[in-house]
Amino acid sequence: MSNEEPQREANGNNLRARRVALDTHDQMVVITRRDCPVCRSEGFSAHARVRIQNGERRIIATLYQIDSDLLGLEEIALSESAWQRLNVEEGDLVHIAHPQPLDSLGLVRGRIYGNRLGREDMHRIIADIAAGRYADIHLSMFLTVMAARVPDDEELIHLTEAMINAGDRLRWDREVIADKHCVGGLPGNRTTPLVVAMVAACGLWMPKTSSRAITSPAGTADTMETLAPVDLDLDQMRSVIEKEGGCVAWGGAVRLSPVDDMLIRVARLMDIDAEGQMVASVLSKKVAAGSTHLVLDVPVGPTAKVRSQSEAQELAQRLQSVADAFGLKLRVLITDGSEPVGRGIGPALEARDLLAVLRNEPDHPADLRRRAVKLAGALLELTDTAAAGGGEAMAEATLDDGSAWAKFEAICNAQGGLREPPRAARRHEMLSTSAGEVVSIDNRRLARVAKLAGAPAAAAAGLEIHIKLGDHVDAGQVLYTIHAETAGELNYAREFAESNGIIKLA
Amino acid sequence: MSNEEPQREANGNNLRARRVALDTHDQMVVITRRDCPVCRSEGFSAHARVRIQNGERRIIATLYQIDSDLLGLEEIALSESAWQRLNVEEGDLVHIAHPQPLDSLGLVRGRIYGNRLGREDMHRIIADIAAGRYADIHLSMFLTVMAARVPDDEELIHLTEAMINAGDRLRWDREVIADKHCVGGLPGNRTTPLVVAMVAACGLWMPKTSSRAITSPAGTADTMETLAPVDLDLDQMRSVIEKEGGCVAWGGAVRLSPVDDMLIRVARLMDIDAEGQMVASVLSKKVAAGSTHLVLDVPVGPTAKVRSQSEAQELAQRLQSVADAFGLKLRVLITDGSEPVGRGIGPALEARDLLAVLRNEPDHPADLRRRAVKLAGALLELTDTAAAGGGEAMAEATLDDGSAWAKFEAICNAQGGLREPPRAARRHEMLSTSAGEVVSIDNRRLARVAKLAGAPAAAAAGLEIHIKLGDHVDAGQVLYTIHAETAGELNYAREFAESNGIIKLA
Repeated sequence: MSNEEPQREANGNNLRARRVALDTHDQMVVITRRDCPVCRSEGFSAHARVRIQNGERRIIATLYQIDSDLLGLEEIALSESAWQRLNVEEGDLVHIAHPQPLDSLGLVRGRIYGNRLGREDMHRIIADIAAGRYADIHLSMFLTVMAARVPDDEELIHLTEAMINAGDRLRWDREVIADKHCVGGLPGNRTTPLVVAMVAACGLWMPKTSSRAITSPAGTADTMETLAPVDLDLDQMRSVIEKEGGCVAWGGAVRLSPVDDMLIRVARLMDIDAEGQMVASVLSKKVAAGSTHLVLDVPVGPTAKVRSQSEAQELAQRLQSVADAFGLKLRVLITDGSEPVGRGIGPALEARDLLAVLRNEPDHPADLRRRAVKLAGALLELTDTAAAGGGEAMAEATLDDGSAWAKFEAICNAQGGLREPPRAARRHEMLSTSAGEVVSIDNRRLARVAKLAGAPAAAAAGLEIHIKLGDHVDAGQVLYTIHAETAGELNYAREFAESNGIIKLA
Repeated sequence: MSNEEPQREANGNNLRARRVALDTHDQMVVITRRDCPVCRSEGFSAHARVRIQNGERRIIATLYQIDSDLLGLEEIALSESAWQRLNVEEGDLVHIAHPQPLDSLGLVRGRIYGNRLGREDMHRIIADIAAGRYADIHLSMFLTVMAARVPDDEELIHLTEAMINAGDRLRWDREVIADKHCVGGLPGNRTTPLVVAMVAACGLWMPKTSSRAITSPAGTADTMETLAPVDLDLDQMRSVIEKEGGCVAWGGAVRLSPVDDMLIRVARLMDIDAEGQMVASVLSKKVAAGSTHLVLDVPVGPTAKVRSQSEAQELAQRLQSVADAFGLKLRVLITDGSEPVGRGIGPALEARDLLAVLRNEPDHPADLRRRAVKLAGALLELTDTAAAGGGEAMAEATLDDGSAWAKFEAICNAQGGLREPPRAARRHEMLSTSAGEVVSIDNRRLARVAKLAGAPAAAAAGLEIHIKLGDHVDAGQVLYTIHAETAGELNYAREFAESNGIIKLA
């Protein structure tokens, strides 16, 4: 966003900014009159990509045009996303111009046809993405080709490095910075806040940045947000860590690997999670966050994100190669991903499971606790906090003696205050139509039900599952309860659930 | 667009349509208040994809939201594209709902990871695209993966068939329907109107549908439009053909393979032309148009779309396999694509070259004439109108005796009236900075200059080239003249031209 682009038409081509409070989510949109003289002289027509500049700030936006006197001839309406990013005031003059030709797109095109991307290539592409010069279809093109033609280790290292360089990078005043991550795909597998509480209770520093959901009904940041504020800036995060040793913040708020967030937004609309992108996404965030020791949870199951042991081994190898290149100590744990973890699926419902484990409530989800202990134990060993073989016992003790819960409360309060997760306005119980033993649970379809119910945008939405693999159920027994905020979403989730065999009995 | 989707929420969820004259080109956009009760109850937020229905007509649109009383709580503003497609009147009630889950996207995702698409798969994808259910990022995903993982013959036949089925199909009352096509990439290679005039003058029926530019500065339809109306509907096209035997209409106006037009729009923004897509694009239009005999011009050159003989041979083989599957007689001519054809690049400038050839003007571009005669000759032979080896002479005679020009005038008049191509308001001459022999011309960069100058949107824009490969030029001699309608575009094209070595001397 600096001086890379020459200053063109420094005089003229100015339009008066109008705020129209148009929410386009994160798409940059600007609107002029069709007969606006500046646009006519520049040859801009509807759907053109244009560069808008306000002082030092620049964006690339999609131009729409209006045949109406709602706007003056010398005015330009900005979507809220554009308004914020340009930091304009009502009536400021902004400058409109042709964007520079997007040369790095030629590199993406070349990769479609089989070329590999070198270090310089990857840095050019990622810098253009970071500067907002890629439209969504270009991001889709990049993501698709990186998924279809799997990057080699070298390309993946370049991609990771470029993504790190495009954002902030944190430095901590400690030699060991602990981190954990789960590649996802397993509904309800919300171990991160538990691990943070346990290892911070053991004295480690774990400044955790988490993402919001990509294709799942909840990301860790979505879940944590129902318990405490997660939009911490860097200074806030640092002060939480210095005080408590741990935090669970939303990664986007500190601009670690911001390109990752842009790619994730489009990947979500595409509903894909590609391995190469996943490796670069995870590791760029970790390296940028200043992590030195990372435990990675890779759940494997027929309907999890990773479906086979061999796929998991291959992913682990890719992660290890790239982590080595950045001096990051990594331990990958391949875990059972055959069924959901805990009871809740959706931000608030998962948060309730966390509270039950931390507070040692008698009906806490034992599977969630077990998984969290295993991961925390591995991290305590990897960082030499516990002796080999002694990690799990050390982690478990923090739950038993209440020190993990005390630490978690302290972290939430340091982040802005512990709060109670919301409850949804509407519920619907899904009953078994027959009797038998539960032989399979389709994680993907279950996640789909939770998403149709409104998760993660509606924090209280999702579902609670009441059975496990191997359980015997009777006809008419409740299998799971759908939670939604609106009648439309509840119906929609229910219709999908009813027409799809998600839980199979035998 | 028929009954495939169940009727949901038949009551309620209605909003009053407001026309706001918002030109979003072909993107479907709707806008509601953020606090619109229907959207709140359905859980719609900004950037959601929504289904809008007016009677039998349905679209999928992107929702934006506004915090302003410009709209009422029960109102919905529609972009012009949405307004037209839904055929609403001001104040009509339209119905808003969640789109059905886009299941066929799972097939596209599967193909990213290596699955092939069967007949049924391809038909489901293309039907969803035809129904407007794919957002641009999904079209980008489809195009990218089809480019990166080249379709096999079987897939290509399925794709072509699905694209044919998704649109209108023409039947003609003649056994032989002639057609020609050029895969493009060679600026100024505007032979089609000449071939139509010549073969129609010989008594063949040639109902030509042409496309607008994809990534080039002009498509045949763009060029022809500067000479006569090309937006003919099916009845109009039929009446021109019955009267004159030939026409040059814009394919989109008759909805032949409309999915192709949607894919072309996105491919243009991506700036890609993938071989497989090209085969399906060309042949779906030809089969749908009822063509029985097709001559295909494949120019080969270092900066043409097809760069080597082997690539051209491979493309020819793909085209032949798919054409065979549909009983279409095909002859592929691999031609010289080392330099631009004729003098003009851009719609109106190319149209002037056509007129010069048809009118036998003394300074007509001889290379353009030669190429057109070769193609018309091949078509006369392929259809057994001329004996083997006698096609070119028969074609040439129609130019010499004025019958091709008389036929062309008659066709233009039947299409709505022959007209004079426009002239651009501004010009700039690009001079040679040294003396020497022209050893190479970069077609791609030359095309880029014409596009930056405003072609094809500005019909008069583009450039006229004054030299050929092998010519000797002096320092200060004019190499080409840029034509533009606006000062901004002229400068922009000039700056690009000045900073890139497009014509090399030795």
